[in-house]
Order: sequence, then C-alpha cells, then structure tokens
Amino acid sequence: MTLKTKRSENYPEWYQCVVSASEMAENSASPGCMVIKPWGYGIWERIRDLMDEQFRETDHENAYFPMFIPLSFFRKEAEHVEGFAKEMAVVTHSRLKNIDGTLQPDGELEEPLIVRPTSETIIADSFAKWVKSYRDLPVLINQWANVVRWEMRPRLFLRTREFLWQEGHTAHASAIEAEAETKRMLEVYRKTSEEFLAMPVIEGVKPQYDKFPGAVDTYCIEAMMQDGKALQAGTSHFLGQNFAKSANISFINKENKPEFAYTTSWGVSTRLIGGLIMTHADDEGMVTPPRVAPYQVILVPVIKKPEDEEKVMAYISDLASELKAQTPFGEKIRVKIDKRLKQSVDKFWEWTRKGAPLICEIGPRDVESSGLVVKERLSVGQKEIISKDNFVASVAQRLENIQNRMFEKAKERMTQNIRTDITTPEQFKAYFENANEWIEDGKHGKVAFVKGKWCGDDETEEILKELKISIRCLPLEQSGTKGKCLLTGKDATIDVIYARSY
Amino acid sequence: MTLKTKRSENYPEWYQCVVSASEMAENSASPGCMVIKPWGYGIWERIRDLMDEQFRETDHENAYFPMFIPLSFFRKEAEHVEGFAKEMAVVTHSRLKNIDGTLQPDGELEEPLIVRPTSETIIADSFAKWVKSYRDLPVLINQWANVVRWEMRPRLFLRTREFLWQEGHTAHASAIEAEAETKRMLEVYRKTSEEFLAMPVIEGVKPQYDKFPGAVDTYCIEAMMQDGKALQAGTSHFLGQNFAKSANISFINKENKPEFAYTTSWGVSTRLIGGLIMTHADDEGMVTPPRVAPYQVILVPVIKKPEDEEKVMAYISDLASELKAQTPFGEKIRVKIDKRLKQSVDKFWEWTRKGAPLICEIGPRDVESSGLVVKERLSVGQKEIISKDNFVASVAQRLENIQNRMFEKAKERMTQNIRTDITTPEQFKAYFENANEWIEDGKHGKVAFVKGKWCGDDETEEILKELKISIRCLPLEQSGTKGKCLLTGKDATIDVIYARSY
Repeated sequence: MTLKTKRSENYPEWYQCVVSASEMAENSASPGCMVIKPWGYGIWERIRDLMDEQFRETDHENAYFPMFIPLSFFRKEAEHVEGFAKEMAVVTHSRLKNIDGTLQPDGELEEPLIVRPTSETIIADSFAKWVKSYRDLPVLINQWANVVRWEMRPRLFLRTREFLWQEGHTAHASAIEAEAETKRMLEVYRKTSEEFLAMPVIEGVKPQYDKFPGAVDTYCIEAMMQDGKALQAGTSHFLGQNFAKSANISFINKENKPEFAYTTSWGVSTRLIGGLIMTHADDEGMVTPPRVAPYQVILVPVIKKPEDEEKVMAYISDLASELKAQTPFGEKIRVKIDKRLKQSVDKFWEWTRKGAPLICEIGPRDVESSGLVVKERLSVGQKEIISKDNFVASVAQRLENIQNRMFEKAKERMTQNIRTDITTPEQFKAYFENANEWIEDGKHGKVAFVKGKWCGDDETEEILKELKISIRCLPLEQSGTKGKCLLTGKDATIDVIYARSY
Repeated sequence: MTLKTKRSENYPEWYQCVVSASEMAENSASPGCMVIKPWGYGIWERIRDLMDEQFRETDHENAYFPMFIPLSFFRKEAEHVEGFAKEMAVVTHSRLKNIDGTLQPDGELEEPLIVRPTSETIIADSFAKWVKSYRDLPVLINQWANVVRWEMRPRLFLRTREFLWQEGHTAHASAIEAEAETKRMLEVYRKTSEEFLAMPVIEGVKPQYDKFPGAVDTYCIEAMMQDGKALQAGTSHFLGQNFAKSANISFINKENKPEFAYTTSWGVSTRLIGGLIMTHADDEGMVTPPRVAPYQVILVPVIKKPEDEEKVMAYISDLASELKAQTPFGEKIRVKIDKRLKQSVDKFWEWTRKGAPLICEIGPRDVESSGLVVKERLSVGQKEIISKDNFVASVAQRLENIQNRMFEKAKERMTQNIRTDITTPEQFKAYFENANEWIEDGKHGKVAFVKGKWCGDDETEEILKELKISIRCLPLEQSGTKGKCLLTGKDATIDVIYARSY
C-alpha cells in the first residue's frame, strides 16, 4: 500500500502524497490557505499543550491581541515594515453592498487595517500602557494565533498565506535579561523539537543580513529534512530597544530614571508539522512520534460474523480501560477504538498512512486466547502476537521506546550528513553545483549540510545566491579555530552551516 | 477597596469597571477590538478545555479552516449573506507600496476576501469533498477560531469586532440525526454554562424571524444578568439541507440514491465571559467560579523583615506541594505563589478584584503556628485562621462548595425574577414601560423576565420593538396550556420568555 510517489522518485511530490494520504491537511478554495484536518490539527494541539507547559514553568502567561493592526503602526518601525510590506493582507472595507445587482465591498475604512503578519507593533502598544516602573517588569506574554503572509508559492504547512503559530513577546529592565530570555526560549524550542517532535536541530544565530526585520539578533533552530535540505523550525529575537522606542515602552528604573525597555519575541508555527513530516514519514505515509500523536494506540475490531461483535467489542472496551491506566511519558495515554463501518483492513491502512504509533487488531480468536495483534508503525507494520496482559504492561515502554528510536534515527541521519571535509571554495562550489539528489536513510548522499568557515563579508551574499544555498546559522557552539572562508578563501574564524533550504 | 462605580449606581459603568479592575481585557488601539489579558484569556482556556472534553466524549474532532472566505461563497446562500453583509471585514489588497512617500494598499485582489463572520460556507465546501457515501457520515467537526463582525457599538467581551469562539459543524445522513445533534450540543452548552460557569440558563428555540441566517431552526440558551437583562449565551442551528444544497454536500444513501446531507452548526464565544462577569461580579470586582478560574488558590507571602523571607517562602513552597496533591472536581488543582515585589496588601486586593476563589496570606507567625489565613472571595474576603493540615484536607471541598453556592445564588436570582403573574397586554405594557431599574440580589426588582403566551403573529414584532424588548426563546419545556398573547390579547398556546437583552 505504498504511496503513489516514493521519496526517492520525487521528493516534493512524495511530500504532497504524505500530507494528503495521512489526512493532515488539504488545499482550500480560499487561495493559498489550507484546511488543517483533524489528524494534523490534533498534532498541533499536542504541540501547543507541551509548549504551554514549558511556558508556564518559565512564568509566561497566554493572552490575546487584535488581529487587525492599523497601518500607521507599521510606519513606526522602518525596518520592520520594509520586511513585511510585500506580503500583507489589507482590510479596506467594512461591509458588502448590492451595487448594480452584485455584492461589492462598501464602507471604506478611514485607515486600512493590516491582518497581522506578526504582532510586535500592536503588542508593544499594550506593553507601553502596562509598564511604568521596573517593578512591572518583566512582562512575559505568549499568544496562540493565526497570522497572514501573502505567499506567492504556497505549500501545505511549509508556506501558506494563513498559518497558526505562537508568538512570545516579553519586556525586560535590562539588555542582559532580555538576551537571556531570547536564549531561554530558544532552548524551549530545542527541547520541543528534539524531545517531543523527535527532530534534532542545530541551535545558532542568523547572519545580520538575515535577521528578523527590526531585531538586533535572531537566534534559530535548524533541522535537516530527509532530502538534506534545512528547515528553519523556530526563531527567537532579541529586539534591543528598537520596538520599545517606537512604541514608547519606558519605565522608571531602580535609579529613578526613565529608560526604554528591552524586548524579545519568538515564535514557532504549523510549519513545524511540515518539518515533522519531512523528518519521519516514509513511503507508506506519516510516522507520528508518540508524544505528539493525537492517538497513540488504535484498537481495530476484526469482525467477520455479526454474532462475534458483542464479545469482541466488550473485550476491546475492557482492553481500552486497562490501557487508560497506563501513563507513557507521565501523561494520560491516548487510545482510540475505531468503531466505524469500514473494513478492518482499510482501517489498518488508514492508521498506517496517518502514522499512529501502535495499531492493534482484535478478532474473536484473540478474545479466546486473551491476546491481540499489535503492529508498530515505525517498523512499517511489523506484526506481533501478544497476550493482553503483556501488552498492557509494556505499552508505556513501547511508546517511549518508539519515541527514542525515532529521535536516534533522525539524529544519526543528521550527524552523518553534516560534511566537515570540504575546505576550499573550489570543492565547495563543485559540491553544491552537483548536489541535487535525495539521500537514502543512513547513506551519505549528495545534498548535505556543510559546516565550514565564513569570513562575514558582504560580497558573500551574492555567491550564496548563485549556488542557491544559504547560511542557516552560526552555531552557538563555535570551535574558535582559524581557517579559510568557503565562499571567498579569505581567513576566517566563524563556523557556519551552509545548506539548501525550504 | 470598592470599585469606582457600584452596580446600583450605573450598571454599564460598573461592568466596565469590573473588566478593567479584574484585568480581564482592555480596549485596543485597533478600533473596536479588545486585548484579552492573561486572567481573561486563562478563563477562556479553561472553558475551551472543559468543552473540548465534552466534544471528544461526543466523538467530535477539532480542525481548522481558512479565515478568508472568497466573496463568491457568500453569494451561494442568499439568506445567509443577507444576514452578515452589513458587518463584514473585506480584504481587497495583498501588499503595501510606497506611493508618493506614504505606504498605501497595493496588489488589488481579483476577488475580495471576507474575514469569516462564521464558517458555514467554507466548511461546507470541504464537507462536499469529504462526503461521498452514507458510510462517511456523520462528519463531526469543531473549530476554535477568531471571527469578525463589524460592530458599530463595541463593548468588551459582549460585542467586539473580532472575537474568539468555537463553531461546530456537522453533516448527517438524516434530518432526525441532525436535529438530535443540534439538541445534543445545546445540552453541552447548558452543562457548560450551569456546571462550569455557574450560570443558569433557559433552553429554548428562537422565533422564526430571529433564527440564524440560512437555518431551519435556531436553538439557544439564555441567561439572566444581574440587571435582569437577558444574554444569549450560545446557539445551535439545525440547517436542514440549505447549506448542503448550495455547497453540494451530497451522498449515496443506503438505498443507493443520491441525497443532500443534513447539517448543523453551533457556537459559543468570548461573550460567555461577559455573561460570567454580569452573573457573578460584585462591587469589589470579579468573582470567578473555581472551575474556570485560571488559579483557584493564591498564596501570598506576608514578609515585613528580610530575614523572614527564606523560612516563609520554604513553608509556602511546601504548602503548594501539598495542595497540588488535591484534586477538586477530579482535576489538577491550580495554585499560584505570588512572588512579585509588590506589597502583600496590594496583592490581596488585586486577587480580590480578579476574583480568585481562595486567597491565602502567610507570614512568619503562620509558619510558627503551622497555619495560614484564608480569605474566600465569594464572601468578600471573609477571614479564617486555619491550620495548614486542615486547609489542605478541606481545599477540594471548599472549592466545590464555592462552585455550588455560586450556581445556587444565580439560580435563585433567576427563578425569583421570572414573572409569571402578568397576564394581559395592558399589565405587560405598563410593566416594561417602567422597567428600567437595576435589581438588588434576591429582591424582586422592576426589570425581570416575563414568561407568558405568544400568538406568533407577524404584527407582534412591531410591538416588541416599541417596548424595546424581545422574545428570548420558546422554552423547550412548554406547558401546553391555553391563554392570551401578552402582545395582542389573542388566543395563544406558545409559552415564551420576554425580556430586555444585551
């Protein structure tokens, strides 16, 4: 029941196949926007809950700010508006009117409203009201919301005009505190990616020319997809006093003097789900890590004769109750009994395409033997016949084990595909000019990340464009060694990650 | 520390005072939109979680659909667009451009997009793709989202241009099933209002002229605010085949014939929080029911001398751990240690204004005596000195008790203020012409609900308008008795609730 297109045949088409076959999302009649279907949205809800827990532990509170931002707010921060002006949805009218027999926009607004591409400006306006004294600081706020950026080449999860995200916004009494916050939240993102999504990442800082519009520094986590391309999975910005000055977030400091606050912002979006797919999915469909799977264990009744139904369903119901007492990862387990009218074999393949971690099939013979058949998605449905008691006793460990193996597998792939043996601009150029192929799991393919030196000169941007690659980040861990810039051959000390990217 | 304006002085002003003093929400620089601050948003998150649990139990799944709806979609259902055309935010451009030195909308869209005022049309479009056979039915979907209706007289929580809500959308193979769903979800709303928000409601159906645009029948729950006005707290619509026909949601039925599906939709919004405030708040601020309070127990250190800090904080930390083992309502308890730099008395009043159910103060003497001071918000901070062990052992019951008392209090007020003794149009008219005053708790005031007969004639709409009242609903429980219509004096059998409303 392999997907229509395999990874090795056409990676972008394979991606679309997985999204569609797993019923995670679909294109919508609303141009460039997506419908996030229950399995995809359920994963997003798990991500939300796991992140909310970390936000609470670090004393952040959720709040909600208006989606419409007056145009004048964007004029306040020149770099910021410059960065977003080309992709903004603009609301200009407040009603429809029947004009000459067709409904047309009417009630033109005095000031156009921008549908938030990000909320720095409108949130800073509230912070300016909330903050008077150093005693009011820090302000630690997070928002879960939809945002809009007018993408011209939309792709499900990776680039859609509307997407969902969380955006943290904080204000602090000192630059040091704000920078510490920026890094603290980057660590939350690393943990979320690695421990929950089983997606290893490299933590780093963006080159200055690639930072968030209006920021002083942009930190990021970068993940490697199965085709060797990089995906920016989250960013955390130290904004200095830039937004505080334009929105007038000022406070009386301990020395009794007025001072502008230091702010940060940080976000991850439904793009993470695109990364999740491109990290774990295979030629059968999605493989969902247990920690974010909407259901971790699926119970499929296999009933051929109507007279078997009652006893099989009673047995499954008991099994579900016993399973629900188990707590993998210290959480409530998520068990689904699939009672639909479809054939059990169709159900099995549907849950396989969705990537439910454990799929159990239970028929009358299993009831008699007090057993069941369990198939593990990560092993492409490898079948195991097991007693009910053994399954219940082992289910938490099985799920934890799957989670660990998924991370290890992805980690190994990433480690094996970061090249450090390219040391001259000639080798480097030759490498990326020919690097177009997909890599098999575990095999060292032609597209990889290249870790090497960068001189930091302006002229390097042009060379990167020609090679269709980018500097993903300056990793937080820097070797400090001297070497030659892989773009210019000049002396250089900065380590960077070069890669193709999404 | 009473609010600036008392309920009895000016009820609308008092409402604004509560919203502001409790820090639940504030007006925004974005015209007509609100900022939902952490305490208000936390209540909304509790409502969301408690409703999600009920949605899951009734086999509904969450999903997410685009916020932008092509204008042409609204043209498909004439009654529907008629109902919303006057209050729609319209996106007409996709970028900003610097024209003559100022940023202006640019990139005009071929087809304007409507920011969803509700999602029937765009969701029906997906359902049409998902549903082929009766085996695909029912489809049971819920969405948590922001929606926009261009209100001209915005009021925090009650009427804002952007608000948050959940909207359920389902499709069924028969009218009977769809109607049963409509009523099932109305019951979920009743339970949410009464058991979680402690806000008693009357369940009923709207008069035909007041139903949702495009619906066959609109069911609702109506609550009574402390000023005797009604608040529509939730609606559930049976849409028949109207939207299925315009979006072509058709399926092959069991008889192997094509048939249009039967759909429903149902929603509650952040307006519920407005109802929560107007049901429970008093002259000191908000009183938050424990089930939806972001924090149920607040621990405030009372430290005068720095040398006491360590031992008091250690004691509070122990107390918090012990409390966290308690499970009021079968849930994790929500405890907050208020460590901020502010004075303890200011903290106490802040939590009082927010309406945290139990506020505990702990100083060095309490540490010595292994006790604490607990103040119950519902009793306006009535003070009790209690041992730590007794408090921990009783905290779950205290919270459950507060929840029950809050519901009983509101229920009694509603029961006492539904008049059934008005039986002629003359009495009725005289009553509502003079009914402008606020009612004291438990006292039978001049503005109440009137339960009486309605003949159902068209002319009655005009009389209602003159009296500035409306028919809130035809209660599901009908007496079946004969009587005279309170508006026309004609023979009538239908029981209705007449009231002023929000």
